[in-house]
Amino acid sequence: MQFLEEQILKYGKICPHSVLKVDSFLNHQVDVSIVTELANAIYDHYKDSGVTKILTVESSGIPLACMTASAFKVPFIFAKKKRTINLSDQVFKSAVHSYTTGKYSEIMISAEYLGKDDKVLIVDDFLAKGSALRALIEIVEDSGATLVGTAVAIEKGFQGGGDMLRKEGFKVYSLSIIDKMTESKIIFRGD
Amino acid sequence: MQFLEEQILKYGKICPHSVLKVDSFLNHQVDVSIVTELANAIYDHYKDSGVTKILTVESSGIPLACMTASAFKVPFIFAKKKRTINLSDQVFKSAVHSYTTGKYSEIMISAEYLGKDDKVLIVDDFLAKGSALRALIEIVEDSGATLVGTAVAIEKGFQGGGDMLRKEGFKVYSLSIIDKMTESKIIFRGD
Repeated sequence: MQFLEEQILKYGKICPHSVLKVDSFLNHQVDVSIVTELANAIYDHYKDSGVTKILTVESSGIPLACMTASAFKVPFIFAKKKRTINLSDQVFKSAVHSYTTGKYSEIMISAEYLGKDDKVLIVDDFLAKGSALRALIEIVEDSGATLVGTAVAIEKGFQGGGDMLRKEGFKVYSLSIIDKMTESKIIFRGD
Repeated sequence: MQFLEEQILKYGKICPHSVLKVDSFLNHQVDVSIVTELANAIYDHYKDSGVTKILTVESSGIPLACMTASAFKVPFIFAKKKRTINLSDQVFKSAVHSYTTGKYSEIMISAEYLGKDDKVLIVDDFLAKGSALRALIEIVEDSGATLVGTAVAIEKGFQGGGDMLRKEGFKVYSLSIIDKMTESKIIFRGD
């Protein structure tokens, strides 16, 4: 999506260890007009799939999930990283592997909000190794709901998670795919 | 706001220790059509105040902040509870007191996203003792920005935080104020 690539080139900051900071518009400060454009593109891609729920994980997936849910006119759920008083006793849970810390952490949703009649679209801001998406996919599978597909704003193609998921047959719609990142340059797939 | 009071009576669940669960539409599963109505009411209330930024804290404030920012056509920032790679070295930070755990925890935002030219509206889902709002107010004051006011979906009036803030001169706009909650009944202010 050329629009997003332009925003990344304009506002993104390349940091050490292949970190791309887009916190001026996507995941700390949020430019809702930009996120709305991204959500509309996701809607266009999946609009004929009968989506009944959007699923993401707190916190940085929430803005994109919110605007995507608004476009689809369906609710969204954000999986929690901590058990809070707001969670039911019955949860669907899964583990996310962090490549930064090397640790696994649990994410969970109240079981009452996902069931076999749901058609779920998973949305997140970033896709690198794919661990968060895999954990969300596992939650959808456990719930008995149908997974329609996944959508992310920025895929770090060079970390391989997206292509691995595609190879396994999952639908991964990325609004931008970065195939190479150096200290001074970002190369998008198709460039 | 009668619309929100109706949603609370319809979907809210009263739990022990004065916990009101509204996680079917506000802060776990999110009904964006409801949240949009709430955001529009906040916009109506503050639309002539020259708001340039919306500020909230992760995670459950994000959906309402997102739709409110969309109504105002301004960006929003969500304060983080953990220092992540997405945060700058320069941050504005403050401490939130949890009445559940008795502990203080830090919240922070990158300093570059708030400055003296900003007019800030603070938004959150719940207001009980007021600790989160106070922490966000402190961040706004530290940044040199002007605080326009605060807005929350549900104020637990019986916990006193909102009235205390009002007494100190802060603008607190609550879309619903619960003055009493028993095991089976919710009494809203003005009922």
